[in-house]
Amino acid sequence: MIKTIEWTDDGVVMIDQRLLPTEEVYPVFRTYQDVAEAIKVMVIRGAPAIGVAAAMGVAVGAKAIDPALDPAGFDAALEPVYETLAATRPTAVNLFWAIERMRRVAADARAAGAGNAALVARLVDEAKGMHDEDIEANRAMGRFGAELMPDSGVILTHCNAGALATAGYGTALGVIRAAVEAGKRVAVFADETRPFLQGARLTAWELHKDDIPVTLITDNMAGHFMKAGKIDCVVVGSDRIAANGDVANKIGTYSVAVLARENNIPFYVAAPTSTVDLNCPTGEEIPIEDRPIDEVTTVGQRVLAPEGITVANPAFDVTPNRYVAAIITEKGVARAPYEVSLHALVCGKADKEQAQGV
Amino acid sequence: MIKTIEWTDDGVVMIDQRLLPTEEVYPVFRTYQDVAEAIKVMVIRGAPAIGVAAAMGVAVGAKAIDPALDPAGFDAALEPVYETLAATRPTAVNLFWAIERMRRVAADARAAGAGNAALVARLVDEAKGMHDEDIEANRAMGRFGAELMPDSGVILTHCNAGALATAGYGTALGVIRAAVEAGKRVAVFADETRPFLQGARLTAWELHKDDIPVTLITDNMAGHFMKAGKIDCVVVGSDRIAANGDVANKIGTYSVAVLARENNIPFYVAAPTSTVDLNCPTGEEIPIEDRPIDEVTTVGQRVLAPEGITVANPAFDVTPNRYVAAIITEKGVARAPYEVSLHALVCGKADKEQAQGV
Repeated sequence: MIKTIEWTDDGVVMIDQRLLPTEEVYPVFRTYQDVAEAIKVMVIRGAPAIGVAAAMGVAVGAKAIDPALDPAGFDAALEPVYETLAATRPTAVNLFWAIERMRRVAADARAAGAGNAALVARLVDEAKGMHDEDIEANRAMGRFGAELMPDSGVILTHCNAGALATAGYGTALGVIRAAVEAGKRVAVFADETRPFLQGARLTAWELHKDDIPVTLITDNMAGHFMKAGKIDCVVVGSDRIAANGDVANKIGTYSVAVLARENNIPFYVAAPTSTVDLNCPTGEEIPIEDRPIDEVTTVGQRVLAPEGITVANPAFDVTPNRYVAAIITEKGVARAPYEVSLHALVCGKADKEQAQGV
Repeated sequence: MIKTIEWTDDGVVMIDQRLLPTEEVYPVFRTYQDVAEAIKVMVIRGAPAIGVAAAMGVAVGAKAIDPALDPAGFDAALEPVYETLAATRPTAVNLFWAIERMRRVAADARAAGAGNAALVARLVDEAKGMHDEDIEANRAMGRFGAELMPDSGVILTHCNAGALATAGYGTALGVIRAAVEAGKRVAVFADETRPFLQGARLTAWELHKDDIPVTLITDNMAGHFMKAGKIDCVVVGSDRIAANGDVANKIGTYSVAVLARENNIPFYVAAPTSTVDLNCPTGEEIPIEDRPIDEVTTVGQRVLAPEGITVANPAFDVTPNRYVAAIITEKGVARAPYEVSLHALVCGKADKEQAQGV
């Protein structure tokens, strides 16, 4: 199994995803600032993986604070840790969810009378637990999602919502892995996903390692193959899902969703409930990150565009809920109306009827 | 003005479009085999430019045949010239149209009693004439198309249907240039157009040279900006238009057309009547070229995908006529029903009513 991110006593070990698929390198990030920078420059990416990285970043930061400080001083020293990690990327809500969870753990530990050492131990445990929990969530999501996949056929995915986007197994790719494990004969079409090429570099690499047949296409080929009848369904991950089921995900997801509907192909989203942001009523309120333009204008040393022009690089887009056939979470499958079904799943009051939005 | 292709006594001079935008190099192609290879490897591309290059290739080939041959031997020696040039690329019909036209010129010259030297002179004249005629056609197309452009607003284009795709001025970019010349305040969003990056490397370069404001985006951003209300219309070129108005064009065009319709944005096609293939009843019959997969998996020296996976690289797709608001030609603007309006334009029997498909 691919090790995306791992806690060690030495620091946080992450595979440097910028170097894949040609180099497989596992640097150690020993300070919270280094972890924050790794998130920012996309050593690690993918909403659930960012959440785990942020939690581990908090734990690394807590470990480095002088344990001789009084509790108030210690807790004050944790503030810049939370803040630096929260300032890395704006769209994936799992980042804020993970930091909030670490804050609460710290507060609860203090409330229970924990000293600094016990607090640090509690934060380290929580971060490690979130890692393992994420893998469990993906496996559960996979089981729910696999039932929606065709017994045999071709699944298109966009970006990388795989083991590399999570602590392991993956969200969208977890659904595909679970379908394969359930004996379904599925193959994958992977959009290369410009500009960062997560589909070409990461999804194709992961699936090929797992012997799941994968065909790489450029983003602008997806519609052509849908129209040609080559695609049976679409599964993607998400960086933030609004309360009404609008889905923020990697730029290009909206186009895939529109093309899928135009060609009567179901479009599924797989994401843990930690990606659902009930505080965002609709996709309109989800902040969309603009990333550096050299991601678009250069590949390696190669310059792809003339100097002096304007370049746009929004990293995400929002797919309105009306294009989404179902949202697959670790707690069950939500269908429209999503206001009802997502709320039920996230708040854990779901009975099966509610979760299905029936 | 950008010199895409030029006839010289020395051979055919073309700007090597593979090296743009970082290097501006003008090699000379001295044999018909070299011209054919230049078309195949995309030193030159774009349907009208390919047509002109093929015509010049025929002329270069004719010049090299031993003038001492008897006329039958000379004409027989022309056959492999036609055939080699015709075998370069399958989709752009202008290639076959240009070669057919050169064949007819040769046959007519012979019928009028021309000797070998006169025949060669006639072929050279015809090729040079087709070059100049193409620019004239683009200017006429521009005048018709400019009227359809907004007085101020943003036009999205895909691939490069500019001066570099033609003998000069461009088809889609000709329409945009004409709109600017008519005093309209338009800016352009250019899809980068993977895998060959004609949008980033060529369209952005051309427009920037002409001081027309251009914003470069990756292909998968087009839908996002349409949904955000940033795009007022779309204009693209074409490689072959079927009799019913189905449009073959660079891969990704279909997706742009679907996204445009979904967002109530008019989608226009600009192409000379030499791109209309009345022998193709619908887009189904248009052959789609598959190109080498390293165009997708590498950029320069950089490897973008793991080894051992399947990669698809269809160079074109077909946009069904129902997505096309109008087809702008040098003879006028065709609208649905295209069976009627295109036939009228191509066969030159158009009165304005017919051409508008009314």
